[in-house]
Amino acid sequence: MEFEFSDRIRGLKPSLIREILKADPDPEAISFAAGNPSPDTFPTAEMAAAASDIFSEKSGAAFQYGITEGYTPLRKATAERVRRLHGIGKDFDDCIIVSGGQQGIELATKVLLNEGDTLVCEDPSFIGALNCFRAQRLNLVGVECDGDGMKTDELEKVLARGGVKAIYTIPDFQNPGGSTMSLERRGKLMELAKKYNVYILEDGPYFELRYSGETLPTLKSMDDEGRVIFCGSYSKIVAPGIRIGYVVAHRDILAKMAVAKQVSDVHTNLFFQMIVERLVSGGGFERHIADCRTVYRWRRDIMLRELKRNIPESKASWTKPDGGLFVWLTLPEGYDGTELCARAKANKLACVPGIAFGVDENAPSRSLRLNFSLPTDEQLVRGCEILGREIDNYVR
Amino acid sequence: MEFEFSDRIRGLKPSLIREILKADPDPEAISFAAGNPSPDTFPTAEMAAAASDIFSEKSGAAFQYGITEGYTPLRKATAERVRRLHGIGKDFDDCIIVSGGQQGIELATKVLLNEGDTLVCEDPSFIGALNCFRAQRLNLVGVECDGDGMKTDELEKVLARGGVKAIYTIPDFQNPGGSTMSLERRGKLMELAKKYNVYILEDGPYFELRYSGETLPTLKSMDDEGRVIFCGSYSKIVAPGIRIGYVVAHRDILAKMAVAKQVSDVHTNLFFQMIVERLVSGGGFERHIADCRTVYRWRRDIMLRELKRNIPESKASWTKPDGGLFVWLTLPEGYDGTELCARAKANKLACVPGIAFGVDENAPSRSLRLNFSLPTDEQLVRGCEILGREIDNYVR
Repeated sequence: MEFEFSDRIRGLKPSLIREILKADPDPEAISFAAGNPSPDTFPTAEMAAAASDIFSEKSGAAFQYGITEGYTPLRKATAERVRRLHGIGKDFDDCIIVSGGQQGIELATKVLLNEGDTLVCEDPSFIGALNCFRAQRLNLVGVECDGDGMKTDELEKVLARGGVKAIYTIPDFQNPGGSTMSLERRGKLMELAKKYNVYILEDGPYFELRYSGETLPTLKSMDDEGRVIFCGSYSKIVAPGIRIGYVVAHRDILAKMAVAKQVSDVHTNLFFQMIVERLVSGGGFERHIADCRTVYRWRRDIMLRELKRNIPESKASWTKPDGGLFVWLTLPEGYDGTELCARAKANKLACVPGIAFGVDENAPSRSLRLNFSLPTDEQLVRGCEILGREIDNYVR
Repeated sequence: MEFEFSDRIRGLKPSLIREILKADPDPEAISFAAGNPSPDTFPTAEMAAAASDIFSEKSGAAFQYGITEGYTPLRKATAERVRRLHGIGKDFDDCIIVSGGQQGIELATKVLLNEGDTLVCEDPSFIGALNCFRAQRLNLVGVECDGDGMKTDELEKVLARGGVKAIYTIPDFQNPGGSTMSLERRGKLMELAKKYNVYILEDGPYFELRYSGETLPTLKSMDDEGRVIFCGSYSKIVAPGIRIGYVVAHRDILAKMAVAKQVSDVHTNLFFQMIVERLVSGGGFERHIADCRTVYRWRRDIMLRELKRNIPESKASWTKPDGGLFVWLTLPEGYDGTELCARAKANKLACVPGIAFGVDENAPSRSLRLNFSLPTDEQLVRGCEILGREIDNYVR
């Protein structure tokens, strides 16, 4: 039979990145295409020890239905930790556990925005969030970024036109751009949000993965009204396959998000909520995150060194991120990121073309996203060589 | 600040059941209110053994991002098993893994129905599904059930009015009614769906938990067009806290559901997908399900025996379910299920009033739902005594 699909799903494309990853099982190929953390950072032994305890001590509870808002000790441990270390959360806020940061983004927009409402985001931005917004048929408006993050003067022009309901931003080590929003712009963004009465959806998947420069306050830590919804994640500081994230927001907003979560997946895998609680409450968690930073700083440094060694400044520019997982490389005017990706792919290097992250899915892009967290040292060196050679051939 | 919520979430109430469960921590109280399977049935030792293997053999893969459609060996094992044992799935079908049956319901309606589209369901029906449909602002039309399930003559009248897009049904051991759709009505339902060109969303959380009577074919097994989307679940045959379910449907529909899942939670907890795969592919799974049936048959028999012993036929009637987890008790005309629940609660017995399951949330109900899977033998006996006494006091 012929199937007729809903309006919301008909125009939605599968994420280009996931398609690239699925289609590329060539074992000799090098991938800068993923957004994956390194398995070297997964606290496997600690998780195994916690799992063994849970199996012997509380398997009845771990396998039964749980509360939609999340396993209470993990909610408490998470809320206490991010408030103590990062000032995230005021007395009016609370914390719920979600099935990865992606679910936090979906639930927040689901409860705050109607179909057709306008949401402003960085352009380019995280493909998973963009597709989530598209599936909700929001009116997406992109604002350009530079090395200091979203351009707040551009943002103000958009807000002044009226009708904006919310702003989605990744202030720290943005995906895909790698930029970090400056302190000044953070202040300006908060001021504008108040002036124009819009919500801020702050996505912080990497905010604890800073390798250089000075830590800047999250927007949520500057929020004295309950305007900011902070989506956090354990994907990059524990492991992504377990699908555990969290949201810190005003408790009235979280109450609605819990109702929305109830009809979505009832609750998040309880056993792994218990495992993460043990990691977070155990003594070694901050040490573990510091170790993650050490691994990624090392890899970032290799990638930046090798890009510099292989690519003349006249032929491409790229960001020097202070954290996160990505470098954003841009070709000179007149060149196309998708073409360079195709050339790299033919030489066994996978990258994601910038077009995948555009608010306008059809706008050509001179850029590509390079991931440094997953490749080995050798792959980073060889991949940058391939990229350098292909840029040299392509850019005249 | 004042929050303004989306239209879809503003009118949605939290599930009455979950609120009852949350609000009732009295350790002396007996609960017939849950929809939980018994922890006695959880294959904890088998899961612990599988977990230990996965930690030592494939922890890299288990903790990394996975494919949205699910862990391939589990998809294959599930599809092969339900097709071999139950005829679920044709060559045009495929199988994806979801974060519990609830997510299957949400994703299916998300990709097939627009806001305002009409969906027909049994009345009363599963509260989680009803709230999911409400959150999508579907136009819900209920059709009455009797002991043979949804009344297909009533259904035909609704379909003949036109504009129906899909039918949601739990043909086996319906929640909350406990009824099972007769073979004749299954045939009629399939015929009507074809005639009026509507989708069927078949929810089968309990379909393998039959304790008496003859097994009837699922609607999906009668589907030669790809019209039926079958939502299955490992919640009642493994454990609910792990949040693993599956959907068997035409591969074109599943492709869209995978796109919708990608923006919702990326993928389901991978470690427990691996655990379930080992259980399903291991030798003991059918034996395990048979053991679950033995446990629940025993408890159902106690509840039915004790209801009979404590309640005169003139004062209430109740279903004698062939499977599932619930008995549906109905008072004579003029009496109110909510009032009886309040009286029972005051005497330390929790039940869910029928009103919680109505398509019309405000329509009074003479019924209440009684769960027999979670209470112990003693609790079943004592709970039925309390209920009998309260009915005796209330119904004159």
